[in-house]
Amino acid sequence: MTPSPTKIVPIILAGGTGTRLWPMSRAARPKQFLSLISENSLFQDTLLRVSDRAVYDPPIIVTNADYRFLVAEQALEIGIEPGVIVLEPQARNTAPAIAVAALIAGADGHDPLLHVLPSDHAVAADTAYRTAVETAIAAAQEGRLVTFGITPDMPATGFGYIEAGPQEGNGAHAVSRFIEKPDFPTAQAMIAEGGYFWNSGMFMFAASAILEAARQLAPDVLAAAEGAVGQAVHDLDFLRLDADAFAKAPNISIDYAIFEKADTVSIVPAAITWSDLGSWDAVWRASLRDEHGNVARGRTTLIDSTDALVISDNGHIVVDGHKDIIVVASDDAVYVGRLSAAQRVGAAVERLKAHSQTHELTQSHKTMYRPWGGYSSILDGERFQVKRLFVKPGKKLSLQKHHHRAEHWVVVRGIGEIDVDGRTRTLRENESVYIPQGSVHRLSNPGKMMLEVIEVQTGSYLGEDDITRIADEFGRV
Amino acid sequence: MTPSPTKIVPIILAGGTGTRLWPMSRAARPKQFLSLISENSLFQDTLLRVSDRAVYDPPIIVTNADYRFLVAEQALEIGIEPGVIVLEPQARNTAPAIAVAALIAGADGHDPLLHVLPSDHAVAADTAYRTAVETAIAAAQEGRLVTFGITPDMPATGFGYIEAGPQEGNGAHAVSRFIEKPDFPTAQAMIAEGGYFWNSGMFMFAASAILEAARQLAPDVLAAAEGAVGQAVHDLDFLRLDADAFAKAPNISIDYAIFEKADTVSIVPAAITWSDLGSWDAVWRASLRDEHGNVARGRTTLIDSTDALVISDNGHIVVDGHKDIIVVASDDAVYVGRLSAAQRVGAAVERLKAHSQTHELTQSHKTMYRPWGGYSSILDGERFQVKRLFVKPGKKLSLQKHHHRAEHWVVVRGIGEIDVDGRTRTLRENESVYIPQGSVHRLSNPGKMMLEVIEVQTGSYLGEDDITRIADEFGRV
Repeated sequence: MTPSPTKIVPIILAGGTGTRLWPMSRAARPKQFLSLISENSLFQDTLLRVSDRAVYDPPIIVTNADYRFLVAEQALEIGIEPGVIVLEPQARNTAPAIAVAALIAGADGHDPLLHVLPSDHAVAADTAYRTAVETAIAAAQEGRLVTFGITPDMPATGFGYIEAGPQEGNGAHAVSRFIEKPDFPTAQAMIAEGGYFWNSGMFMFAASAILEAARQLAPDVLAAAEGAVGQAVHDLDFLRLDADAFAKAPNISIDYAIFEKADTVSIVPAAITWSDLGSWDAVWRASLRDEHGNVARGRTTLIDSTDALVISDNGHIVVDGHKDIIVVASDDAVYVGRLSAAQRVGAAVERLKAHSQTHELTQSHKTMYRPWGGYSSILDGERFQVKRLFVKPGKKLSLQKHHHRAEHWVVVRGIGEIDVDGRTRTLRENESVYIPQGSVHRLSNPGKMMLEVIEVQTGSYLGEDDITRIADEFGRV
Repeated sequence: MTPSPTKIVPIILAGGTGTRLWPMSRAARPKQFLSLISENSLFQDTLLRVSDRAVYDPPIIVTNADYRFLVAEQALEIGIEPGVIVLEPQARNTAPAIAVAALIAGADGHDPLLHVLPSDHAVAADTAYRTAVETAIAAAQEGRLVTFGITPDMPATGFGYIEAGPQEGNGAHAVSRFIEKPDFPTAQAMIAEGGYFWNSGMFMFAASAILEAARQLAPDVLAAAEGAVGQAVHDLDFLRLDADAFAKAPNISIDYAIFEKADTVSIVPAAITWSDLGSWDAVWRASLRDEHGNVARGRTTLIDSTDALVISDNGHIVVDGHKDIIVVASDDAVYVGRLSAAQRVGAAVERLKAHSQTHELTQSHKTMYRPWGGYSSILDGERFQVKRLFVKPGKKLSLQKHHHRAEHWVVVRGIGEIDVDGRTRTLRENESVYIPQGSVHRLSNPGKMMLEVIEVQTGSYLGEDDITRIADEFGRV
């Protein structure tokens, strides 16, 4: 089967977790949803990189069920309509995610090229990038499984490397071997020798080619993916994979499962301006530095300081007389560390996570406590906000209405009783309700365990003070 | 005239300004009102040091008109009823303030001893302190003007020194000479030689003795003070000095005006645990340090750090891998500097003050903007809050009521129209109104300039969400 001449389908992998960019990244809002090097989030920049509809179809986005509102709202914010947002019931690394996406893209006899893109890297869409994509398309059209290799500019020890072999007729190269994350001398030797490239996590192949390779090399992955897609259900704008079927997929990367074994693999090496933004010093390196080696974002004043990364999402930060420093302030925490030891953030986060008083600082952003429970802010957009509400057993919020915002409530844990304009409904996990502007509504928890609700607010004014209380258990009317 | 056997009257000087402890100290909330080394503010600790009513009368507090609500609320919070709170129309240094207090304490033929205390220093009420006070009382009862000298424990260059002379019969010493802030070699020489003491700013004398000395040595100060007190007006709980009369007082310290010239001056030297807390390194030295030389207050985690001062009034601060560092976070700003260069804060504040976008950060705490103007938080107590409201010309707040709090509004600038339960009043500068719990009220600015109001909220629940709007110009009902 040769690829049909359809457009390329972008496969955006947006399920990653991680807190190495704490305090900005949290379990509930990982790196891909942060604005680190532009006004957009990395996920948004990834979507925009494949938004030319003359070349690309609407993207298939694979994400964790927990991040579905982040994905939907951030796509909406930049005017991108996803082809489908696929929800993984649990994280299973890249091989199952890509198999699922290939099955969906290749359904009904289609066989498009798939361009797989991690959503948490910084990639400059420069000439080197565009040339590499064209070469990858040519090779993928010949049935090759193409990976993109980044020309290294430093002996990094945090990435896998790929040794390129002889050039093929399509312009790509054969792959000599894959190399695990090296130690520093090995990395130095590879840089000195040349011909080694960072494994970028970006791929290009025909849907049929990757599925055929999976059938031969990773049949358990493919079987689980087929089951998960076959029994998937549509939920709002999302395609929710079948949890039981997907749970059978091994937790394995596409590199291990297929690329290191297949004999149809090619590499397109390219000197792309690229960063995995895997730590604060990587963010610093990927950003425009001033003449003192400083990077500052948000409300900041730097005085007599050099080699500083200063980012504020909150108050005004003054850094005075320091060298080799990271200062990052989120709405509820400040990290002050060393730029030359940025990997230490991981240990600091583990330490915070281990203590009950600081655990929540690693999970989500600012938490406000109320008599009925409370809420954490997950995302603030210009005309929307995402919050996580938690309601104690037996408690009710006030009967209320809002003039300037509509709300979308989705129960993610426990059981909720919801009145909207006099109509009462019981919502179980993953059920949702829409509350139009001006509707009189009330949320209560009739159950015996904590109720958790994701609230998506949309409207022109989202202040907490747009609330009219009609009745309240706590005397607040 | 010899002192009558009344109790001692504490004179608390609480009008000082300064931002050397930025971002915690602001023009609107200087050092004396901050909790720096205990749960109480320095001002509160000063009041408590003279709260034994067997020895001391209720204090006379002299402060700036801008700080009167801070003074009143902080005294109330610790259950201290001031004798009188004297409001200076403008700052005129210590000589006029002390002359005014002496006139008030010495009115109606009384002649108490006066114990003058700056309210922005840390003083341990230990045995050395108590012994020194007893000696000072004995000397003051003999008509001496007594100053307290602190035994220096380092060659500080930020204070004036006093050389003590021979001991007198009352236990105090004669004063050989006053020395201006020395350079470092001079300070070292004085420490090595001994017999030199820091000028603490604490004094003890009979009202008659200081007034007589003022009559001879600083008649212009005394005349201005007499005018200001003679034409003072009572305003709420405050005694407001006459502005025109007080403006004639020279801007001069009690040291220059009287102590350096009088021949009845004594010094009580004492090894009191004392700090002027004049900079962040002074706060660090005055605090209990752990075995790594770290001082941490509020929500903090220190990892592999030494010689660190970390204070949070806001989010959780993590300091990781630093030495010689100051990190102080307030509600809207973070200062990250060097403990060994703590005096640099002053220049940083000047820089912020000079820019319109950061100017407000040096003036008051967090500012929230609203359609009608906005408000800054000045002080948060357990059962009270002080805010500065600013209302744009022609704008009105919503017609509203609160269930759990009463409010006291004082117009400090512009003209306000205030409805309370259907009754409308016009308030000009320095006029005030009380809004009981549950009253329906509205504030508006009928004028052509910004209206500024100090709002003191009291009650069991002070959340912004205790508001019921009956009518609103901005559609928020």
